[in-house]
Amino acid sequence: MAGENPAVAAPGDWHGRRVVVTGGAGFLGSNLLHALVAQGAMATALDAALPGSGANPANLAGLEGRVARVDADLRTIDDAALADLLRDADAVFHLAAQTGHMASMEAPLEDLAINTTATLRLLETLRHVNPRARFVHASTRQIYGPPRSLPVDESHPLAPPDCNGVAKLAAEGYAMVYARVHGIPATALRLTNCYGPRMRVRDARQTFLGIWIRAVLRDEAFEVWGGEQLRDFTHADDVVAAMLGVAAAPTEHVAGRVFNVGGFPPVSLRDLAARLVAAAGAGSYRIVEFPAARKAIDIGSYVADDGALRAATGWAPRVDLASGLAATLAYFRPRLGDYT
Amino acid sequence: MAGENPAVAAPGDWHGRRVVVTGGAGFLGSNLLHALVAQGAMATALDAALPGSGANPANLAGLEGRVARVDADLRTIDDAALADLLRDADAVFHLAAQTGHMASMEAPLEDLAINTTATLRLLETLRHVNPRARFVHASTRQIYGPPRSLPVDESHPLAPPDCNGVAKLAAEGYAMVYARVHGIPATALRLTNCYGPRMRVRDARQTFLGIWIRAVLRDEAFEVWGGEQLRDFTHADDVVAAMLGVAAAPTEHVAGRVFNVGGFPPVSLRDLAARLVAAAGAGSYRIVEFPAARKAIDIGSYVADDGALRAATGWAPRVDLASGLAATLAYFRPRLGDYT
Repeated sequence: MAGENPAVAAPGDWHGRRVVVTGGAGFLGSNLLHALVAQGAMATALDAALPGSGANPANLAGLEGRVARVDADLRTIDDAALADLLRDADAVFHLAAQTGHMASMEAPLEDLAINTTATLRLLETLRHVNPRARFVHASTRQIYGPPRSLPVDESHPLAPPDCNGVAKLAAEGYAMVYARVHGIPATALRLTNCYGPRMRVRDARQTFLGIWIRAVLRDEAFEVWGGEQLRDFTHADDVVAAMLGVAAAPTEHVAGRVFNVGGFPPVSLRDLAARLVAAAGAGSYRIVEFPAARKAIDIGSYVADDGALRAATGWAPRVDLASGLAATLAYFRPRLGDYT
Repeated sequence: MAGENPAVAAPGDWHGRRVVVTGGAGFLGSNLLHALVAQGAMATALDAALPGSGANPANLAGLEGRVARVDADLRTIDDAALADLLRDADAVFHLAAQTGHMASMEAPLEDLAINTTATLRLLETLRHVNPRARFVHASTRQIYGPPRSLPVDESHPLAPPDCNGVAKLAAEGYAMVYARVHGIPATALRLTNCYGPRMRVRDARQTFLGIWIRAVLRDEAFEVWGGEQLRDFTHADDVVAAMLGVAAAPTEHVAGRVFNVGGFPPVSLRDLAARLVAAAGAGSYRIVEFPAARKAIDIGSYVADDGALRAATGWAPRVDLASGLAATLAYFRPRLGDYT
């Protein structure tokens, strides 16, 4: 597992390079940091550790003394401190976000501030102090809204179904404007359901799969809303590979572009539930109707066409669902107390 | 001219209805207020009178005592005051905005706060205190970016070319989410270059046509950047008619929808310049190359397909370019001092 044995640093492009990971204590940010440190990067993790976010001290276990920590909120960190943080970075991976869809509907102004205003501050600061840093932005397939047909490629119409989608689309839009107008080599990756070690399993704010995993590890029952929806799941290691691949790719292949990140062939949620219960050898599930408030912002089935990313960077997913679920359960089984 | 003789109130749907116009002291907001008052509405104008905005006390001349004035900024007005303002409104016309494209690139965080955060506050407040008010949102064709083909209908891909476009797209996105999820009967009108009495002519923050008008009225020369770009211009009276038409249309025809608002057949900027100089009998122009900073965010030619709005509401533009320019010059000629 990435970062489990950081003393054995794989050779890589990242040796001695300075990187900043926002949301570094969260699910994907911490997985990225484990990989970067393993490859010799000089990494800084910025995280506001907001309640409800994926930030968890356990995510950075093993990286003590190998990652600089900045406990700060991009909404409020002062301009000079932000400039200092970014001035020498070779790459900035921007994963700090509010990811909850229902949360965005309940507190949309906070969602906007975290997802959009903070991203714009980051880009503005880069423009002034370090416009050559590679900028990799974690975007989301949520901005497409309910797909008109499957699979969805990057030319699919944009119709964010909830406040989170609106705010994330704007953040991505700023990254693209800064790439085109100011020359910042920014790339946005539209992620779908991601899972793996270090994900938030306390609730469904990152993905419903989190609470499913918690349930089976506790040998409890969980609910599957609907069940026929198709989704393609991306394992954290594949997300990390996509981000590092983009940041290492020739600028002309990736700057100012948005790419879907998909995974292996999609599964229905019903299928996924059955596979998870089988993999855990514990827990159970029942199919229930979609709660109305949730249904109003659900996107139904989604399958990414990620051919553009594959073509631009050579990336392809490597972790199939069976091994991904097994590795995820293996990670959480001895650590569930740190995550619930 | 609308509102020139408000004592003669035309019969209309607006008699005794309560309306709130944000940006009410600005170009389109004030024209809308003149029309609403003429039709007997009980109108409130909210305006922050921000430097660089279209707000101008001269715009509300003749409406003294007939429009309630709230001098407040949607970013900072306190929650209770905003709720009081909106609680009894039958319709809210949201025109308060930062419209300058270059200004948005220079001060993007301010642009985001004015255009997006403030709009979201307005929608959040409506959701809580008055979700049945008709909500008409002034959006912009800027969100399409450079058109892929002409004319542009509402299904054209969205690719905002500048910070203003990103922020305005997000504002429209929130209006649509609030319509679909919360049932607020919101409609967005994607405006193109608008002109007419009460526009800002001090600079190009609303449209370049403003400074052209100022120049010919002073018998000065103005610059035409490029010149071959096509644009369709909408006279303020036609924008007002579109907004009132949407607000009066059956909800099922307009709620949760976005509509382009176009005008008469497009003209090239070169043609427009020649027509303006001829109409004024003064001034001159010269064609110059596009300044680089401006070129980076320009959208080139744009022509709206506004068939959807025509079909949904019966609206059609009535003021052709020749009479529109003549009326605009006639308005400003004796009042140029109030606007420069």
